[in-house]
Amino acid sequence: MSSQAKVLLVNGPNLNLLGRREPGHYGHHTLEQIVSDLQQQAADANLQLEHIQSNAEHLLIEAIHNTDADFVIINPAAFTHTSVALRDALLGVAIPFIEVHLSNVHSREPFRHHSYFSDKAVGIICGLGAQGYQFALQSVIAQLKASQQK
Amino acid sequence: MSSQAKVLLVNGPNLNLLGRREPGHYGHHTLEQIVSDLQQQAADANLQLEHIQSNAEHLLIEAIHNTDADFVIINPAAFTHTSVALRDALLGVAIPFIEVHLSNVHSREPFRHHSYFSDKAVGIICGLGAQGYQFALQSVIAQLKASQQK
Amino acid sequence: MSSQAKVLLVNGPNLNLLGRREPGHYGHHTLEQIVSDLQQQAADANLQLEHIQSNAEHLLIEAIHNTDADFVIINPAAFTHTSVALRDALLGVAIPFIEVHLSNVHSREPFRHHSYFSDKAVGIICGLGAQGYQFALQSVIAQLKASQQK
Amino acid sequence: MSSQAKVLLVNGPNLNLLGRREPGHYGHHTLEQIVSDLQQQAADANLQLEHIQSNAEHLLIEAIHNTDADFVIINPAAFTHTSVALRDALLGVAIPFIEVHLSNVHSREPFRHHSYFSDKAVGIICGLGAQGYQFALQSVIAQLKASQQK
Amino acid sequence: MSSQAKVLLVNGPNLNLLGRREPGHYGHHTLEQIVSDLQQQAADANLQLEHIQSNAEHLLIEAIHNTDADFVIINPAAFTHTSVALRDALLGVAIPFIEVHLSNVHSREPFRHHSYFSDKAVGIICGLGAQGYQFALQSVIAQLKASQQK
Amino acid sequence: MSSQAKVLLVNGPNLNLLGRREPGHYGHHTLEQIVSDLQQQAADANLQLEHIQSNAEHLLIEAIHNTDADFVIINPAAFTHTSVALRDALLGVAIPFIEVHLSNVHSREPFRHHSYFSDKAVGIICGLGAQGYQFALQSVIAQLKASQQK
Amino acid sequence: MSSQAKVLLVNGPNLNLLGRREPGHYGHHTLEQIVSDLQQQAADANLQLEHIQSNAEHLLIEAIHNTDADFVIINPAAFTHTSVALRDALLGVAIPFIEVHLSNVHSREPFRHHSYFSDKAVGIICGLGAQGYQFALQSVIAQLKASQQK
Amino acid sequence: MSSQAKVLLVNGPNLNLLGRREPGHYGHHTLEQIVSDLQQQAADANLQLEHIQSNAEHLLIEAIHNTDADFVIINPAAFTHTSVALRDALLGVAIPFIEVHLSNVHSREPFRHHSYFSDKAVGIICGLGAQGYQFALQSVIAQLKASQQK
Amino acid sequence: MSSQAKVLLVNGPNLNLLGRREPGHYGHHTLEQIVSDLQQQAADANLQLEHIQSNAEHLLIEAIHNTDADFVIINPAAFTHTSVALRDALLGVAIPFIEVHLSNVHSREPFRHHSYFSDKAVGIICGLGAQGYQFALQSVIAQLKASQQK
Amino acid sequence: MSSQAKVLLVNGPNLNLLGRREPGHYGHHTLEQIVSDLQQQAADANLQLEHIQSNAEHLLIEAIHNTDADFVIINPAAFTHTSVALRDALLGVAIPFIEVHLSNVHSREPFRHHSYFSDKAVGIICGLGAQGYQFALQSVIAQLKASQQK
Amino acid sequence: MSSQAKVLLVNGPNLNLLGRREPGHYGHHTLEQIVSDLQQQAADANLQLEHIQSNAEHLLIEAIHNTDADFVIINPAAFTHTSVALRDALLGVAIPFIEVHLSNVHSREPFRHHSYFSDKAVGIICGLGAQGYQFALQSVIAQLKASQQK
Amino acid sequence: MSSQAKVLLVNGPNLNLLGRREPGHYGHHTLEQIVSDLQQQAADANLQLEHIQSNAEHLLIEAIHNTDADFVIINPAAFTHTSVALRDALLGVAIPFIEVHLSNVHSREPFRHHSYFSDKAVGIICGLGAQGYQFALQSVIAQLKASQQK
Repeated sequence: MSSQAKVLLVNGPNLNLLGRREPGHYGHHTLEQIVSDLQQQAADANLQLEHIQSNAEHLLIEAIHNTDADFVIINPAAFTHTSVALRDALLGVAIPFIEVHLSNVHSREPFRHHSYFSDKAVGIICGLGAQGYQFALQSVIAQLKASQQK
Repeated sequence: MSSQAKVLLVNGPNLNLLGRREPGHYGHHTLEQIVSDLQQQAADANLQLEHIQSNAEHLLIEAIHNTDADFVIINPAAFTHTSVALRDALLGVAIPFIEVHLSNVHSREPFRHHSYFSDKAVGIICGLGAQGYQFALQSVIAQLKASQQK
Repeated sequence: MSSQAKVLLVNGPNLNLLGRREPGHYGHHTLEQIVSDLQQQAADANLQLEHIQSNAEHLLIEAIHNTDADFVIINPAAFTHTSVALRDALLGVAIPFIEVHLSNVHSREPFRHHSYFSDKAVGIICGLGAQGYQFALQSVIAQLKASQQK
Repeated sequence: MSSQAKVLLVNGPNLNLLGRREPGHYGHHTLEQIVSDLQQQAADANLQLEHIQSNAEHLLIEAIHNTDADFVIINPAAFTHTSVALRDALLGVAIPFIEVHLSNVHSREPFRHHSYFSDKAVGIICGLGAQGYQFALQSVIAQLKASQQK
Repeated sequence: MSSQAKVLLVNGPNLNLLGRREPGHYGHHTLEQIVSDLQQQAADANLQLEHIQSNAEHLLIEAIHNTDADFVIINPAAFTHTSVALRDALLGVAIPFIEVHLSNVHSREPFRHHSYFSDKAVGIICGLGAQGYQFALQSVIAQLKASQQK
Repeated sequence: MSSQAKVLLVNGPNLNLLGRREPGHYGHHTLEQIVSDLQQQAADANLQLEHIQSNAEHLLIEAIHNTDADFVIINPAAFTHTSVALRDALLGVAIPFIEVHLSNVHSREPFRHHSYFSDKAVGIICGLGAQGYQFALQSVIAQLKASQQK
Repeated sequence: MSSQAKVLLVNGPNLNLLGRREPGHYGHHTLEQIVSDLQQQAADANLQLEHIQSNAEHLLIEAIHNTDADFVIINPAAFTHTSVALRDALLGVAIPFIEVHLSNVHSREPFRHHSYFSDKAVGIICGLGAQGYQFALQSVIAQLKASQQK
Repeated sequence: MSSQAKVLLVNGPNLNLLGRREPGHYGHHTLEQIVSDLQQQAADANLQLEHIQSNAEHLLIEAIHNTDADFVIINPAAFTHTSVALRDALLGVAIPFIEVHLSNVHSREPFRHHSYFSDKAVGIICGLGAQGYQFALQSVIAQLKASQQK
Repeated sequence: MSSQAKVLLVNGPNLNLLGRREPGHYGHHTLEQIVSDLQQQAADANLQLEHIQSNAEHLLIEAIHNTDADFVIINPAAFTHTSVALRDALLGVAIPFIEVHLSNVHSREPFRHHSYFSDKAVGIICGLGAQGYQFALQSVIAQLKASQQK
Repeated sequence: MSSQAKVLLVNGPNLNLLGRREPGHYGHHTLEQIVSDLQQQAADANLQLEHIQSNAEHLLIEAIHNTDADFVIINPAAFTHTSVALRDALLGVAIPFIEVHLSNVHSREPFRHHSYFSDKAVGIICGLGAQGYQFALQSVIAQLKASQQK
Repeated sequence: MSSQAKVLLVNGPNLNLLGRREPGHYGHHTLEQIVSDLQQQAADANLQLEHIQSNAEHLLIEAIHNTDADFVIINPAAFTHTSVALRDALLGVAIPFIEVHLSNVHSREPFRHHSYFSDKAVGIICGLGAQGYQFALQSVIAQLKASQQK
Repeated sequence: MSSQAKVLLVNGPNLNLLGRREPGHYGHHTLEQIVSDLQQQAADANLQLEHIQSNAEHLLIEAIHNTDADFVIINPAAFTHTSVALRDALLGVAIPFIEVHLSNVHSREPFRHHSYFSDKAVGIICGLGAQGYQFALQSVIAQLKASQQK
């Protein structure tokens, strides 16, 4: 990719527990390991990857307000099901985004079957663990490349 | 108005984007311009107008806890549909309030048709843009004047 | 305003009882007083204000069919919740309208929470008593002025 | 109890208003008085009692992430009905918890009848005022004693 | 009864067909015969009985607005299930009323199981044919006598 | 009436409290007074009136199984909303019945708006107090007379 | 057809706007043109065609009460979704009817998907514009012919 | 019509039973007779009519994939209520279609009131028997003629 | 406590199985042991404790009718979800009550999430086993003491 | 079968009417005849068959508490749809059971489509009349034989 | 049985996997073994048993169209919950049928609790494994014998 | 990967139209191109890739019955929302599967938001076009490698 594009990776509440919490649902990798791998994958594609994880909704909202990223990859975690404010932040800045869930939300409690993000997302990946982020990043790379070629 | 009454204006998440975000829904004025106009309108009626905008629910809650205002004008934005805590803050301090929305929430997504505030509000104004705040303030002025006259 | 624009004010069933009926919900002013004040407000803005109140749905429909107004201000009262025909009249003539309710319908019976008008209205004002009509008229004046300036 | 166990007491938004706000629902004791009494009750049972009250969801989440308590007593207040993130924090650290409400949520608004915590709680106490916390603590003491005896 | 009280009998749409229409549901008496019998029953109790039947909702509303009756007996017929305006007329004049249905609405289509009147009525009689009106009138007589004796 | 017909009056749970319990809902007459008046009314029409009140569903069911009455007047009280077994007893013996409620169930809790009896009843009377039973008996007398005349 | 049968064509509220209103939904023909074509089609089949259009529900009801038509063709327009009284008028006179809608109600707002007429209609035609009336009339002619041949 | 257009008539499962099955619902004509009449009607309008009836969803789908028709007339029969695949086939080829039902589905079981086709159809005809197909074909002829004239 | 107050403990169906039945849900103590401990606790507070357990709804209702207790502690067991009659008995005698469940009903079948008692109870305790009764009794003692001190 | 196993047959309310009541639904055999045939069938398989029919829920519950049967065959009749207490009795004693209905509950009123027993039953038989009990007993015999052979 | 009657046994999709698939739900017998046993049972009763198993809905439909059986025994498997077309085939040929399920569908996913067949079936057997087919066949034999004796 | 594993790729109805149909939803690649790319990707990982696309549900079911694949990648297309039979085929053979959708089903019609497959899938990818299949295959390769390493 000629000019360096930027991707913002947003991770919602409790994801700082990754690798420690409910490994049956979320796998054994820590968030640091996952992000580090994604940084490498981004660098290989000449892409800049910003990352934020927060348990505070307003910090996620403000990271989205302040970014100049071309694409967002977001795992809203519990906010998936409750945060209209985060949805509105994404709509407000009008940056395309992919929604990722580590576990398969459709085989968990019914309230996890509804997302305030999916209808506005480019695409959704769930249940494929940390690899889901890599696929999202691959898709972003392909889409940015395609739009640069137009 | 003889003694100086106070109004707290509360603006919820993403409203700091006003003038930049989705102008089709929210108009072209920035929040600063809107608040500045309202300050003038309040001053003309010998009324003090405090203002808070925050993307953080707890800062809005605490502004409500700490105010000694006689009236609240609130645009809860996305929190309209999700924040019982903000509702409880208003009920807790027992200050009357008017609910304002810049856009017509009834012509948007179905989840925007329910408000955790409307049944407890004095009144609701929506879809009239920044002028909605001015009407709310006019109503507050009239109500304060009427209650002072009793 | 250079050329004289026209506004049609439509009041639905039972509003002829205003000032006599359930003052806790609707205030102490009669409809005649309210309309008279609005006529003055319109005249001040060089605007013509037509008024109809009827308990008969068809008379309201036909007033809408026959008007050449630039804007409608409507308090559909009980028809808010039941009259698709009145909605269709407004859609049929394609005149923009503001919906006004004297009382806060959201703090009354659940069937009063749904309106057949709100999704098509420019804006909605409720719970602010007779002043709600004045705000609606102010908004209409501002909108007509703005569209004339284009 | 031989070794000193620890209990985390978590109080949600607006509970800092206790003793001042809606005493018909919540009683006349301040939160400080209630916690002080519980500290004494805990000390009598050779138990350590940590306390956090916050109006900020993320501070509650992080207190749960960071605790090494053996048991949690939580009054999620308004977050009872809206916070999947707080639920997930409790599930993530896998510490057993008792849910307490000062007022009887079942005789209030319908949206207060659903809790994101109850299905995962050991038990629930509601409507018994500040004494509800004492009962929760008594139960925790009994359960910790029983598990130590195994 | 010393002073002469007044009762307004209101019959909704299609009841002019009585005696001709669906006798399995509504019986063989014409409305004229029914009203004539009720007039006699009222006269015997020194009570004045006004009657209106109309297929036009607004005429029923206006009859209620204009009456000085002490009690209303109403068979809203099809308007039972659809007319908030008629409900509001009764609430507006604040005259107590008894709701009567000739047929048993609970054994007919599901939409006939809901009434916009029943929650505000003193009582409801259905399925007992024209005798239902007589019972309503007997009840009114008893209630007026009782209130006069206070 | 030439041959002596029989009516079974069935009163459900808690109606033995009548005159003592919630007089705002149920009036000041005891059940004994009410039944005694109805016995007199029945005797005047040469009709036999059996009565059972029980708090036990099975005793009501068995009274219905064992009766040779021509008509049933039933106030199922709380069983209105819960007892399919009592409904089935009435359907099993195929005796026509009128359903009576002393209070207006439609202005009470929503679960009182559904009856397992109404769709199978000849008619329903509610909200007219003890007089409701008298109206039911008047209707039964009229219906028995009419069927004897065929 | 030997003896001259009669058809009543009933058009509901706002259909007087045809040709002027929302042509995307309803086409470019005026109601007068449509009815005139249908008069010709009826005359060709030796059939008498009465027509009423009204924005007043009671005038439609009374036209149905007073007709001696053998068949009704009805486009209830907005009353489709709200008028039990009009439904009852048709059931009361027991004349068979065909329901016609100019636009495809199933591709419009959800509240337009329910009709108070369809379950009692002989048949329903929607979305085929003014030709829908012609098909209805063709069907009526065929059915009347068939019933005359029995 | 100058150039010869083509119409595909699609009949869903069990329609091969026509004339033998439930004549109360579907009439006495066999499918062969109905199609033969339609072939004649098409020929008269210089139109080619292809026909497929199948009980196999995939054969209907593939007939739609493979056709070069200008219009589809479809009676999806039981697939009306269950086949998203057939809907998708029609959307995939983007050929306009009219939906026909022989019986009035709105007076049958509730699950027959929903169609996976109606919101995408040009129009719908139901309850008019085999004549419904003829009306659909008349409408197609008119629409093709109109679009040729543009 | 100076004068001796009385508490009625009511246990619903199947609770006679306690200690034998589903110990995972209900614990290992028999009802006799639990009641004996509560008798002691009551005696220590100079309080009289009556007890009834029955599988028969009417015996529970009649125990409530006949008691002169100052407070009721009730575990309605399966009747929690089905008995309006038991609810009405408690409302009829107007004695305050606390609702207790041994197991956490919120983590069991959905139909166990609704109670016909909770909205009228002073408070609810569930999931804390037999200790739940003790807490209820402690609360009753405290409330009686408080009301005596007024 | 070598050792003699035992089966408890439980029949719910109104089944004592069998052979007399609604033979269209329930057939012409009396309960005595049905039970006698089942006794013979049980004896032939060297199985003991206890029987209880009661209209009283508590007697059925207590029969289940007190039995030492290896299997239960139950026709809960009306209690199918309302009795959580009877369900809990079966769960409490943890005896496997088969649910039998004489009529086809799925072709009757909607409230008969839900059973509080089916999800916990081994199997369900309905609509096959008295033979349904015989099939249930055959199945029990086969299952007991199979479990003895393990 | 004197003349030889015929029964069609219909088995829906995936039942060819029997004996291999999910034995916890469906048992260890193959479909071949089950059918072979049923053939023997039919032959013993001088009855002809046709069998079809197919994963293709249309083949099942056509087997039903083409049969001259006196009775159908059907296990629609997954089509139970989705196939209106199969229901219509059975209604179209008007042959009585019994519905059989090997597993207890009521203790599985909620979508398996609804059947498109049960309301039209003579009876339903579920949860009794392969023996369920034998009971269905016994019932068919009894019913055919009974109808021959009339 | 040492031994050669196998993956079955299953494509549901209408996917043969890919590249021709609704490119806004599904992209411009034909199914042949997509499968060819996946074959290459599989070969590179020493994996065998079988492919089936069919518009016939039973052919898809039977492909699943007959495969000896270690993993399934399935795009059920329209069958996602309607085919319990296909779900049961996957459950019957107990092969893990990933669900892929080319378009974002969550931004389309509401009936596309429910899947009969997602709760049983390992993971779900939607909205990422043909690349979604590649991600699914990458995930399968990783999972097979991981399970071989155990």
